Order: sequence, then C-alpha cells, then structure tokens
Amino acid sequence: MSSPITIKDIAKALNISASTVSRALKDHPDISRETKKAVNDLAAKLRYKPNAVALSLKNSRTNTIGVIVPELVHFFFSSVISGIEDVAYDAGYNVMVCQSNEMYSREIINTQALDSNRVEGALVSISKETHDFAHLLYLEENGIPLVFFDRAPEELDVDKVIIDDYKAAYNATTHLIETGCKRIAHLAAPQTLGIGIQRMAGYKKALEDHGITYREDWVIEADSFELAGDATRNLMHLPTPPDAIFAVNDMTAVGAMKTLQRMSIAVPQKVAIIGFSAGFFSDITTPTLSSVDQHGYEMGVEAAKLLLQRIETPVEGKHKTQYIDTHLVLRESTKRKN
Amino acid sequence: MSSPITIKDIAKALNISASTVSRALKDHPDISRETKKAVNDLAAKLRYKPNAVALSLKNSRTNTIGVIVPELVHFFFSSVISGIEDVAYDAGYNVMVCQSNEMYSREIINTQALDSNRVEGALVSISKETHDFAHLLYLEENGIPLVFFDRAPEELDVDKVIIDDYKAAYNATTHLIETGCKRIAHLAAPQTLGIGIQRMAGYKKALEDHGITYREDWVIEADSFELAGDATRNLMHLPTPPDAIFAVNDMTAVGAMKTLQRMSIAVPQKVAIIGFSAGFFSDITTPTLSSVDQHGYEMGVEAAKLLLQRIETPVEGKHKTQYIDTHLVLRESTKRKN
Repeated sequence: MSSPITIKDIAKALNISASTVSRALKDHPDISRETKKAVNDLAAKLRYKPNAVALSLKNSRTNTIGVIVPELVHFFFSSVISGIEDVAYDAGYNVMVCQSNEMYSREIINTQALDSNRVEGALVSISKETHDFAHLLYLEENGIPLVFFDRAPEELDVDKVIIDDYKAAYNATTHLIETGCKRIAHLAAPQTLGIGIQRMAGYKKALEDHGITYREDWVIEADSFELAGDATRNLMHLPTPPDAIFAVNDMTAVGAMKTLQRMSIAVPQKVAIIGFSAGFFSDITTPTLSSVDQHGYEMGVEAAKLLLQRIETPVEGKHKTQYIDTHLVLRESTKRKN
Repeated sequence: MSSPITIKDIAKALNISASTVSRALKDHPDISRETKKAVNDLAAKLRYKPNAVALSLKNSRTNTIGVIVPELVHFFFSSVISGIEDVAYDAGYNVMVCQSNEMYSREIINTQALDSNRVEGALVSISKETHDFAHLLYLEENGIPLVFFDRAPEELDVDKVIIDDYKAAYNATTHLIETGCKRIAHLAAPQTLGIGIQRMAGYKKALEDHGITYREDWVIEADSFELAGDATRNLMHLPTPPDAIFAVNDMTAVGAMKTLQRMSIAVPQKVAIIGFSAGFFSDITTPTLSSVDQHGYEMGVEAAKLLLQRIETPVEGKHKTQYIDTHLVLRESTKRKN
C-alpha cells in the first residue's frame, strides 16, 4: 500500500493550510462549519488516520449520534431514522442505531454502550417495558444531550418530539363514526405506554362526543400482527360484533384485515378498519389501509435538529416538547362519507 | 443521588471477591464467561462507571459489534439484525447498526465511525454503489475482524455468510416453468451487484435447461416497489407480454403485483409472480406472495457466530465462505403444479 495520508495531503487537496486542517479535524471553534465538513469528508474519503498519540481521548470527538429504537422492523421507525440521518450526515455526524427489542434490560445495555462509545448525543424511543428512566437521564447528567421521540416519558422534564396521540386517535375514531360506523372496537397498545394511554383516551372521547357508549368488551390489548388475529376473532364472535376497528398501529390493522378476510367478512362493507402510522403496508394490502400518518421522517428531522442544537448549546432551564402534525390518510379500508 | 456504585458493591451482591469483579470487567482470561456475564449484567443494571483513570484506553473493551446494512427498511435486514443480536447479547456484546442507504460515500463514513468507536468486530452487507472495498478491508488490517453477509465482495478472500443466489434463482424460475409458465420476465437488481449477477445467471440457466429462449426485452433492471410499477407496465405493453415475473426481491414483487391488479390483470391466472426473501410482506398481500426464503435470522446468527470466533481467534490463512440454505415458499401468487 502507498504511504498513509497526512494532514498535508488534505491541506494540499483543499488548498488550505495544514494548521487549518488540523484545527478542523479537532473541531476548533475558529474554523467554519463548511471547512470542517470539507475536511472531514475528504479525510473520510481518503481514510485519513490521525496519529493516536497526538489526539488525546479527551479532545477527540466521535461525531456520532446514538439512536435507540424499540424495533427496527417497524416502517415508522425506519422512516424516523432516515430523517435523523439526513440531518445528521449533512452536519457531519454519523448515526448508530441500537434496538432495545422492547426490553428494558436491553435498553439499559444500549444506553451503557452509547455512553462507552462516547456518542455526542442520543435520540431515544423507549421500550414497552420501560417505566424507570434513570439509565437514560444518566446520559444527560453526564453531558450527553438526550432527545426523546415518539415514545417519551410522560411526566418528566425532558426534550421530546412527539405527536398528539390523543388528538390523532380522536380524529381516526371520529372518521369511523362519520362514515356511519356505530360499533367501534379498539385494538390497543399496553396501557403502561404513554402512546397506549393517549390513543385509548382519544378513542373514548370521540365516542363520548358523538353519543356512542363505550363498551369494555370492544377494547382488547393487541398491538402486533400476531396478536390481532385472536383479538379480531374474539371480537367477531361476540353477541354484538363491532362494525369498525381502530387499531393502534398498521401491523395490527393488517392482522385484523387478513383475519376478517379469512372469516369472509368484507372490509370495509361489514367492518371498516383504520390503522396508525400510514407506513408502507397501508399501500400494499387489498383493500389499501386507511391510517393516521405520523410523518415519521419529519419527526426524525426535527428530533435530530433539536439534538444538534443541544449539542452546540446545552439546555438551560425547561426542556422543549415539540409536536409533529398528523393527518388521516383515507384509503379503501374505511367507507366514504355520505 | 446516592453515592456511585463501586466494584465492592458488585462483589458483595454477587458474593465474589472485588478482584474477581475487577478482572471480569477487564475481560481477564482467567475469569469464566459466566462470571463475566453476571458481573457485566449487574454492572450495566447498576450503571457502574469504571474510574476513567484506572482503565486505560488500550485495555478497555467496548464489547460492541458494528453492523453496516444498506437499508433498514427491508424486512430481510431486520431479520438478519435480530439473529445477530440474539447471538451477540447472549455473549455479552452490544450491537450498533449503521445504514449506508445504498451510498458508497456513506458506507465509508460508517466504516470510519465503527473504527473510531472502537467496535470489536464488524458485520457488513455492502451498498449497491460499492465496487472498491479498501475502506472495509482496512478494518481487518487494523485488527477489527470483519464478516460480510448477504452482499459480499465476489472475488476477495474474506469471511462471508451468504446464500447460493444462483441456485435459489434457478429454483424460483424452474418453479414458474413447472407450473406451466412459458414467458418468464425478470425484474433484476443492478448487474454491478454480486447478488444481481448471480440471480440473473440462475434465471437464465433455468430457462436454458428447460428449452425456453432468453429474451432481452423481458429483463428489466428494477429492484424497488417504485421501479416495479413502470417496469411492469412496460412489460405488459410489449407485443408478447410475459405470463410470469421473477422479481429480485419482495418489495419489487409486490410493486409488480399491485400494478398488475391496477391493470386488471389476474395474479396468478394471467401473470404469476415469485419474489425473493419471503419477508413479512409475502403474508399480507392478496394474493399472498410466493417467494424464496433466505432465512435472514439464521444468516444473522451464523454471521455473528463466525465474527465472535474471529474476535476470539483471528483468522489464519484462508477465510471462510458459509452458505445458508434457501427454500421456496409457495403461496397464492404462483400457480399449482399439475
């Protein structure tokens, strides 16, 4: 192999001084963001390796943002990650993603790993099992800014980018009512999770505002493709089965749809279905799935922007809660309004 | 907050000596894997922070495995990651995932980041744009073991866990022929990507072995849900349209299916479709999708096992190529054999 790339090579290629390159690589405040980006990009491309002795651990930066998500398989979370990445890479940061797999214990290990890998900031959506947040708050106490997205602790003073789950669920349920449905079931997320509580509350409030009695036997905790099967069969075997299902996410909605079809129950004529997150799935089922669009990509963009801001200027005083708008995407699994 | 957790606290809780805890945390060879796991688990749980001065950078281990995938949104890659995680977390490693987004430039940044985050090994599936592997081989040259999975450099002596794409494509095409299809189109991956070349070759060989002439106008480079739309319309507007489509992945197959349905062309009666990867999608479309099951989870398990082996004992001599079996999952989008 040829001799290793030096700071002088980078300086020559960019037509700037070696000391500018050196300071850019050390993220010196005197150097402009543009120059830093140009230097870092070229350094990455040429696989420049700084002399390990010259760069002390304390002064080096990893330029890495750590992300913890519950499950990568959800289209929603991959959209959020795309949004995060577009902002982060533009600003010269790398993004590393850990998956808690909905486990509290793994989320703790993930957090520990972000810390020991010296990430410069963390973006976190909590697992279903997480009710204690000490492991996450620890990051911020140790100088690693932290922004929650989608699933955030309800009552803590933390930075978060979320949707108004209550309002979105209210709107989805109201749409079912306005298209003539009267017996509306809800396949719900665990009622320990903030989004589960909020979406349930929005569902109940919509029923109440339209004079429809809430019935406990029409609400089942089921929030996955697999769980939706049994839940839907149970609902349809009730003496008074529902004529619509509001599902807490799209995978659950699709599970309900496939089950109804296997039972030869027409969607939306006999039972209308609306999901939550308007992911890729909603386009590929037959009928296509009506859903609440959570704008995952935009959520990722805003969460990353807020985090970069916190990395530059640590928060003083109260943290920020930022809402991402949602809207209903009406496709074929719900009826038309008259 | 209470006083910080010390080695003594961990020792007391596990009823072992402080020096055993200390050596376990330093991954000392005298300490058993079980004890190391117990100590590390408890240390993570109690958020034990080693004294930064005591642990020199050289001796500390991150216990992190880095993974680079082209796109997280593919169900196949999330299955592989689940397999990797199950092996890695069991062995006391954390897993961090980077997404190249099919970009060579981002893959270089990802690789650089894995290096500066001091991962102990890397699992990589290359981007569509990657034709030069120096940035990846650099990892191994620098003592970070490297195992490729699914998309691996074709001719280099590297460790890889892959499927026999040629054989799998041959079998998928043969199934279409055996169910009576005679005009078989192929929606292909870029012919710069190893898997693209192999799947195309398997397709051609199956045609040849069954006396069916290969027609260039029935082969279109299209490997995404979006690209499948135009490609399928173009195929169906040919003077002699195909009666079957072998798609290089499931998203493409579903794109073709939805397009045919919009054109009121019955699947599989008029045009049969077979995909590749047997992901979650294949279950939720109507008709359900026949596909080649690549066993992504198992691929992740085997790739992680091989990597852990390399971390323990660096490779001497030739690297290993390990094949994961595939099989056809026959659902409703292909016809039955007579």
